Amino acid sequence: MTSLEFFRLKTREEVLALYDRFPPVGVEEVGLAGARVLAGDVPAPEDVPAFPRASMDGYAARAADTFGAGPAAPQYLEIKGEVPMAAAPPQPVGPGETLRVPTGAMLPEGADAVIMLEYTAEHPDGTLEVRRAVAPGENVLQPGEDVRRGEVLFAAGRRLRPQDLGLLAALGVARLQVHRRPRAAIISSGDEIVPLSARPGPGQVRDSNAHLAAAQVQTWGGLPLLRGIVTDDFAALKGALAAALEETDLVLISGGSSVGARDLTLAAIQALPGAQVLVHGVAIRPGKPTILAAIGEKPLLGLPGHPASAAVVMEVLGRPLLERLSGLAPRPSWGGTVQATLSRNLAGATGREDWVRVRLRPEGDTLWADPVLGPSGLLSPMVKSHGLVVIPLGTEGLFKGEEVSVQLFDGS
Amino acid sequence: MTSLEFFRLKTREEVLALYDRFPPVGVEEVGLAGARVLAGDVPAPEDVPAFPRASMDGYAARAADTFGAGPAAPQYLEIKGEVPMAAAPPQPVGPGETLRVPTGAMLPEGADAVIMLEYTAEHPDGTLEVRRAVAPGENVLQPGEDVRRGEVLFAAGRRLRPQDLGLLAALGVARLQVHRRPRAAIISSGDEIVPLSARPGPGQVRDSNAHLAAAQVQTWGGLPLLRGIVTDDFAALKGALAAALEETDLVLISGGSSVGARDLTLAAIQALPGAQVLVHGVAIRPGKPTILAAIGEKPLLGLPGHPASAAVVMEVLGRPLLERLSGLAPRPSWGGTVQATLSRNLAGATGREDWVRVRLRPEGDTLWADPVLGPSGLLSPMVKSHGLVVIPLGTEGLFKGEEVSVQLFDGS
Repeated sequence: MTSLEFFRLKTREEVLALYDRFPPVGVEEVGLAGARVLAGDVPAPEDVPAFPRASMDGYAARAADTFGAGPAAPQYLEIKGEVPMAAAPPQPVGPGETLRVPTGAMLPEGADAVIMLEYTAEHPDGTLEVRRAVAPGENVLQPGEDVRRGEVLFAAGRRLRPQDLGLLAALGVARLQVHRRPRAAIISSGDEIVPLSARPGPGQVRDSNAHLAAAQVQTWGGLPLLRGIVTDDFAALKGALAAALEETDLVLISGGSSVGARDLTLAAIQALPGAQVLVHGVAIRPGKPTILAAIGEKPLLGLPGHPASAAVVMEVLGRPLLERLSGLAPRPSWGGTVQATLSRNLAGATGREDWVRVRLRPEGDTLWADPVLGPSGLLSPMVKSHGLVVIPLGTEGLFKGEEVSVQLFDGS
Repeated sequence: MTSLEFFRLKTREEVLALYDRFPPVGVEEVGLAGARVLAGDVPAPEDVPAFPRASMDGYAARAADTFGAGPAAPQYLEIKGEVPMAAAPPQPVGPGETLRVPTGAMLPEGADAVIMLEYTAEHPDGTLEVRRAVAPGENVLQPGEDVRRGEVLFAAGRRLRPQDLGLLAALGVARLQVHRRPRAAIISSGDEIVPLSARPGPGQVRDSNAHLAAAQVQTWGGLPLLRGIVTDDFAALKGALAAALEETDLVLISGGSSVGARDLTLAAIQALPGAQVLVHGVAIRPGKPTILAAIGEKPLLGLPGHPASAAVVMEVLGRPLLERLSGLAPRPSWGGTVQATLSRNLAGATGREDWVRVRLRPEGDTLWADPVLGPSGLLSPMVKSHGLVVIPLGTEGLFKGEEVSVQLFDGS
């Protein structure tokens, strides 16, 4: 059992707390279309709107001139012309005067409100009949009402959403300083692993873990680099790890699933210059044989060999690591979980946090979470599931009928 | 008001029902890394696993030879060797015999179970002491237990998740027939619109809608093509629309926000060969002046000019249209919404479905949904919000303290 004894199992929280030591990846300047996680605060370069604008089709006027107007007692204004859509108003509005104004156009000087089309009638002599009073500022967007110049629009560490980009476009911000995507090398190790294109011989399996992890990295905003399969050989493993660390920000190695192969992976990691094994064994199920190491400032995550274990460890530990490297600020996440009712009792695992795959099934008003059990060597339970339910460390389990929070797989 | 009278407002459901007439975009063959929405069913080409495999480190044996074994009454087996990880077992297992076997390795002929390491001890004379009985099949993955050859793994219209790709990789499926990404042309129309790089003159605004819509299209799996700004000119609009339709699968035009500009956009659409205006006005707020047209088999969506209206119409009507074109099969979506408690009364809009922006705010055990009000000409309320709450058509409104379902913006 070699060095296993030197490490006690770490809890998930203990592992996550170690991520602070890994700095986010570098910064690059991109256009709005390539924007990801902001590397610095973005202040508003100007007011939005920059000028008072009509927010309705109608007539620009002095609100005071309409006071007292009603269906039975209209007020009358003199129509002096029209504000074009994309230019300055032709003239100011004086007392008793009005200018036609389309939605979005600039309010003429002197006017402080827009009378909506619906409450007016134009007379042939150029007089406007106003059948409803407006308050000062009514149907007008004021300068800086949307955004005030100098205010911090978006803070460093924010992942920009479509409407955020829309606001930046409105302000003429066309280039942004963002963190580049973290590059993750994915190495598969194990004598029994063959490439997708091969027909597995007796005792062999195709390299599914690498493709699963690559798709996860891609979904979570990273750039996966498939580095191929390495046999259970110390020098080959060490060489592959060293080369991957040169070129990427994070190394994911899907270790052999046998005890011997795991020890070999650990030895190869420990032999790298500047290597420090931080975690060897995590108190989660599935996923116990997970390794976390720091090679200088770069993280290395050793995944269990069983496909379902590797997939769960990537969800539970890999994703937060990738987000840390991406520069994403910790924030509450509203999506990604759904409340459901557990359809059967689930016993917990002694001394481990248990991550159970569940399939969601709506029935009337109830959304059931059906546990999908199966050994972690099988992938199809992951495929049949919509997400994970956690049985916390130190609890006996969860009970049928209990409300549980299901952490959804992306795309479920 | 021109042709407005010929159309009554359509409900959201009526608009969505019209999408059936637009066929999904074409099919292409891609590798696993580029996989999106499946264009056809994918059957399993072989069993998984292809052979019986050990699911634990231990000893392969006949289960019957261990019956009755216990800590106080061990059974003894003769160790005949070891199954290597990536090759066929060296020999079968006869009665009273055993072979060492690592996790994932092939079970030797004659054996039907694996005895876990923990319940054994090797004696110097090559005898294995077994302190616990195993049942036939215990710690063994049977051929086809994960996936049976010929079964439909994934049906047409499915968007593949990482674990789905992992399973395909395990089966050696390296190429897939998928729908290509729908290409969406984005046209901004309006004399008042200037590019991002310009400093808006009096009455002008920068082209934020196009950048917002482009980011939404990208987020939802499409390929946005920014086609620039077209002035309010019939021939220019018609020409821009015709050119965009040649090159893309969907045209999004963000129309002028004034009545005159809207009429011009409508006239240009109607002048296209094979054009049929299906919807002119939708019973939603914001978003009433939305247009849906079919130009032959291709859809055209005319968005309102107000940025917040355009963004909401894209969420409510644009996203389902893009999903239809993507070939995505309708399916229950578990993510994307969250239950929250409304923090104030909201009055409904007569004759319209009202989509209210809300900001989520956790406080103790309660997740509050705070309505973020503001005219639809402003973008910052969208930026401050996490999602939308709908006040259904024909209801008076929603009440403070009511549980509401918040449809989250992507990335919120």
